[in-house]
Amino acid sequence: MKMITNAVGREIPVQTDGKENIPFKGLGKHKSIGRKTGPPIPSGKDYKNKVWENLDQALDKMNLFDGMTVSFHHHLRNGDYLVNLVLNKLATRGLKNIVLAPSALFPVHEPIVDHIKKGTISHILGSMNGPVGRLCSIGGMKKTAILRSHGGRYRASQDGDLKIDAAFIAAPTADVHGNANGVYGPSACGPLGFALADSLYANQVTVVTDHLVLFPAWPWSIEGGNVDFVVPIEKLGDPEKIVSGTTQITTDPDRLKIASMAARIVQDSKLIDEPEFSFQAGAGGMSLAFIQYVAEYMRKKHVIADFVRGGATQGLVDMLESGLTKFILDGQSFDLAGVKSLRENQNHIETNPFVSYNYHTKGCFAPRVKASVLGATEIDLDFNVNVNTHSDGWLLHGIGGFQDAADAYMTIITAPLYRKLNPIVVEHVHTVTAPGETIDVLVTDHGIAVNPDRKDLLDRLKKSDLPIVPIEKLHEEAIKITGKPKAAKQKENIVALIEWRDGTIIDSVREIDLD
Amino acid sequence: MKMITNAVGREIPVQTDGKENIPFKGLGKHKSIGRKTGPPIPSGKDYKNKVWENLDQALDKMNLFDGMTVSFHHHLRNGDYLVNLVLNKLATRGLKNIVLAPSALFPVHEPIVDHIKKGTISHILGSMNGPVGRLCSIGGMKKTAILRSHGGRYRASQDGDLKIDAAFIAAPTADVHGNANGVYGPSACGPLGFALADSLYANQVTVVTDHLVLFPAWPWSIEGGNVDFVVPIEKLGDPEKIVSGTTQITTDPDRLKIASMAARIVQDSKLIDEPEFSFQAGAGGMSLAFIQYVAEYMRKKHVIADFVRGGATQGLVDMLESGLTKFILDGQSFDLAGVKSLRENQNHIETNPFVSYNYHTKGCFAPRVKASVLGATEIDLDFNVNVNTHSDGWLLHGIGGFQDAADAYMTIITAPLYRKLNPIVVEHVHTVTAPGETIDVLVTDHGIAVNPDRKDLLDRLKKSDLPIVPIEKLHEEAIKITGKPKAAKQKENIVALIEWRDGTIIDSVREIDLD
Repeated sequence: MKMITNAVGREIPVQTDGKENIPFKGLGKHKSIGRKTGPPIPSGKDYKNKVWENLDQALDKMNLFDGMTVSFHHHLRNGDYLVNLVLNKLATRGLKNIVLAPSALFPVHEPIVDHIKKGTISHILGSMNGPVGRLCSIGGMKKTAILRSHGGRYRASQDGDLKIDAAFIAAPTADVHGNANGVYGPSACGPLGFALADSLYANQVTVVTDHLVLFPAWPWSIEGGNVDFVVPIEKLGDPEKIVSGTTQITTDPDRLKIASMAARIVQDSKLIDEPEFSFQAGAGGMSLAFIQYVAEYMRKKHVIADFVRGGATQGLVDMLESGLTKFILDGQSFDLAGVKSLRENQNHIETNPFVSYNYHTKGCFAPRVKASVLGATEIDLDFNVNVNTHSDGWLLHGIGGFQDAADAYMTIITAPLYRKLNPIVVEHVHTVTAPGETIDVLVTDHGIAVNPDRKDLLDRLKKSDLPIVPIEKLHEEAIKITGKPKAAKQKENIVALIEWRDGTIIDSVREIDLD
Repeated sequence: MKMITNAVGREIPVQTDGKENIPFKGLGKHKSIGRKTGPPIPSGKDYKNKVWENLDQALDKMNLFDGMTVSFHHHLRNGDYLVNLVLNKLATRGLKNIVLAPSALFPVHEPIVDHIKKGTISHILGSMNGPVGRLCSIGGMKKTAILRSHGGRYRASQDGDLKIDAAFIAAPTADVHGNANGVYGPSACGPLGFALADSLYANQVTVVTDHLVLFPAWPWSIEGGNVDFVVPIEKLGDPEKIVSGTTQITTDPDRLKIASMAARIVQDSKLIDEPEFSFQAGAGGMSLAFIQYVAEYMRKKHVIADFVRGGATQGLVDMLESGLTKFILDGQSFDLAGVKSLRENQNHIETNPFVSYNYHTKGCFAPRVKASVLGATEIDLDFNVNVNTHSDGWLLHGIGGFQDAADAYMTIITAPLYRKLNPIVVEHVHTVTAPGETIDVLVTDHGIAVNPDRKDLLDRLKKSDLPIVPIEKLHEEAIKITGKPKAAKQKENIVALIEWRDGTIIDSVREIDLD
C-alpha cells in the first residue's frame, strides 16, 4: 500500500477504497475547493401524502439497493430502538454491503456486529465505539472505516464526500408534513441537530416518530420540506436511557481535584473576568464538577457569561435560570432538566453542527468559545491528543465533537495521569485525533502543562500558583508509576482513517495483531 | 422573435437573453430536473473577522464587477434606506449593467429609475412595481425583466436559475458573526425570511445593521455561517414606514360587504367547522375585515384554527392571544403588534419561503392552508388571474406571494366588480399571473362565482344562500357598467416575463405603445 506522511508525521494511505486521501497539512492549511453538493430538485406535487402506515410500507416505496449508504443520528443515545429496528428490516430484505453512516453508536447497537459479520453491513463511515470498534480493530469490516467529528460529518455531507442514500431520523415529535423536533413526546431527547445534514443532503429522508401530531410540529428542527417519508411507530426508544433523570457530579477526590484545577485555570487566565466569556463542558461527572466550580466563582464575582455551550445538563440550566449566562447553546441535552429547559426557556438555544462545528462554513461558533474542557485517552509531548484508540491500539471510541470543540480559545484536556497501568501522558499518542496545535492546557491530578506555543496563555498564567510544569515532567512521572508502555501489536493492514474536520486525513488505525 | 404558445394559451418567447424558456405546461405538469445549486465551499479560517467599519470598507473587499447580480429583501418595505444607499455607492464606483434582484420594491426605491436610465442597472429579476414597472413597461430596461413570486424567487435561487453575486441583507439586529434577525432593534420589521435564499445561495453575503449586538444575536433568522461581511450603519430605515403603528380595517361599505361575503363563503363551505382549519389573509383593509368576520364566527362556534398564515397584524395576534388559533405562521409582520408578538410569543412562528412557498421542495405548507384570500387586478372567464398589469397593459405590480398562496385548498379572490371604468371581471386577463386551475372562488360586491371545475366546492356550497352566479354573469354586469374595455396599445417587444412558481413561463408582458 502506498503511504504518505502528513503534517503530524503520521503515515496515511495515498488511496483508500479507490478514493484519493488528502493528508492533514496543519491547522488552517488546507484550502477548501469546489462547491457544496446540491441534492436533486424535488417537486411539491410528488409529496401530497408522506405518511405511511408502518416502516415496511415506507421501505417498500424506497429505493433500496446493495451497497447503499444508510444514516442515523444518535440523539436517543443508549435508549435508541430505531437503528436496530431498521437494520434488522434491511437484513431481512436481503440487502448486502450497506455502508452505515451514524453520527455515533452506543452499546445498545451491538447487533451491528452481527450485521457486519453476515455481510449486511460492509463498513462504517462516521463514528463508532465499543463492540463495533472492536470488530473494526481486528479487520472485521469489508472496507476501511472513516471516523469523523460531528462537525466533520456535517462537512462531509455538505461537501459531497459522504453521500447518504437513505437517512432514518428518529423524531420524538413529528407532523404529517415531516417537521420534527426532539422536545416533545414520550421519547423527548432535546435537540435534533445531528440529523440536520442528513435531512438536507440525503437522497431519501424518512422521519420515524412515536408522537405524530397535527401540522405544525413546532419547533421544526427538521423541516418537512426536506422529508420524503413519515412513519409512525409504537416506540422510538427507552426514555430512561435516552436522557438521564439526573446527571451525577463525580465524588472521586482525584477527579474533583482535576475539575477544580481546570476551573482555577479558567479563573487564573482572567478569561472569565473579561467581556464575552463563554465555556463548553460536557456531561461527564468531572465536567459537571467543573461547571459547578466555575459557576461558584462567577456568582462570587458577578460574572455573566455571554453563553455556555452544552451538552445541556442541570448544571448549565441552573446557570441560565440564575442569570449566570445569557444563553445555553445546546447540541444535545443529557438530562431531563436540559430537555425541559430547551422546551420552555427561549434563551436555551438548540444548535446543530452547521452553526456550531462545521469548519467549511463562513465561520461556526466553536472558535468563539473561550474555554473548552475535554477528555482524552492519551496526550503526548507535542500535545497531540488521542480520543479514539487505547494505547494497546484498540479502536474503541468515536471522535464526537472533540476536534471541533478544540477550536476554542483555550482548550483544556482533563485526565488522570494514568489509568490502571496505562500512562495518559505519553511520548507519542497511538492515534492522533487532534494535533497539538489545537490543545492548550493539560490538567491532570499530578499537575498542569501548558502548550509552550501558547505564549499568550503562559503570559496570562504567569502569576498563577497552580502546579504548572513542562509536559515532559508529567510524562516522566507517569512512566515512573506505570512503567514504559508496551508498543501495541499491530499488522500493516489499515482498518480505519481518522479524518480531520477539514476533510484531510490526520491518522490511520491499523489492524490489531492478535497472535 | 420565435414564440411558442403555453398551456394557458399565451405566447412566450422561445429564448430570452440567450436562455431557453420553458413554457407553462399546466399545474403540476412540469417535472423538475437536475440538482439544487451548491455554493462554493468556504473555510472557517477565512472568516475570523467579518465586521467592517462602514459600507465602503466592505465594498472595497468585495468582488464587484459590471453585469453582476445584486440582491435585497423587502422586509423594511417603504421605510427601507439600504437599497438606495448601496445602489448609490455602486453607481459612484462606476459599476454598469447591474442586474437587480430584489424580493420586492416600494415607492421609496424610485431612484432606481435613474440608475436604470444611467446604465448602472440593466434590468430587474424578481419583483418591481410603481415607477420602476412603468419604466419597464415603456422598454426602459436593457434586458427582459423576469417577475417571480416569493416562492419562485427562492426556487430560482435554489435551482441555480437566479445567481446572486452579492446579497445585501438589511438586518434590524445582527451580531459580529453575522447572525441576524428582524425582531429587535430600532428598525425591527418582524421576520427576515425573504433574505434566506440570498444568504444560502449568494456568492457574497453582507449583513448591514443599525443594531450590532454581542454574539449570539438570537433568533438567528440569518445564520452567520452563511455571511461574509457584517457592516454597522447609522440607520437602516424609517421605523414608521417599516411597520405601521396599526393597520386599518376598511370602512368602505362595498369593501366590507366583500369581506363579509368572503367570510361567509368560508363558513358556508363548512371548512371552518372541520378539523385542521387554517386560513391566510393579508394586511389590506378588506383582508383585516375578513379576519374579523372569520374570528367572530370562530368565537361563536368555538372553533380553533390549527394555524393562521400572516402577514401578521393586530387581527391575527388577537386571534392567537385569545386562543382562536394555535399558531401564527408569519412571513412578514405588518404592524407593531405583529412584530411584538413574533418577538414574545413562542407560538408566533417566523417562516421563510422555503417552508411556506417554495414549490421545489418535498412539500411546502401553502397547500395545507384551507382558505386563502387574495386580491387581483383582473380575473377572466377561465378564472385566470392577473395581479401584475392593469388592463391598459402597464406593469405596475410584483407577484408577491400570489402564485404560492393560491395553492390553498380554497383560493378566494376578493375584488370590486370594476374600478373606475375598468371591469375587473374580463373576458381574457391582460396578463396571466396564475392559471384558473388554482383559483376557486371570486367574491365581488355584485356577487360570487365559483370555479366550475371545483365540483367539491360547489357541492359544499349547495345550500348556501350567497349570491353565487356564473362568472360570465358577473362579466356581463361589469361590462354593462364600464363598457367594453379598449385593448391595450402595445408593441411586439417583450419587456418582462411572468414566471410560474415551478420555473416555467406563464406569460409575457409587452412594451406599451405610447404613440
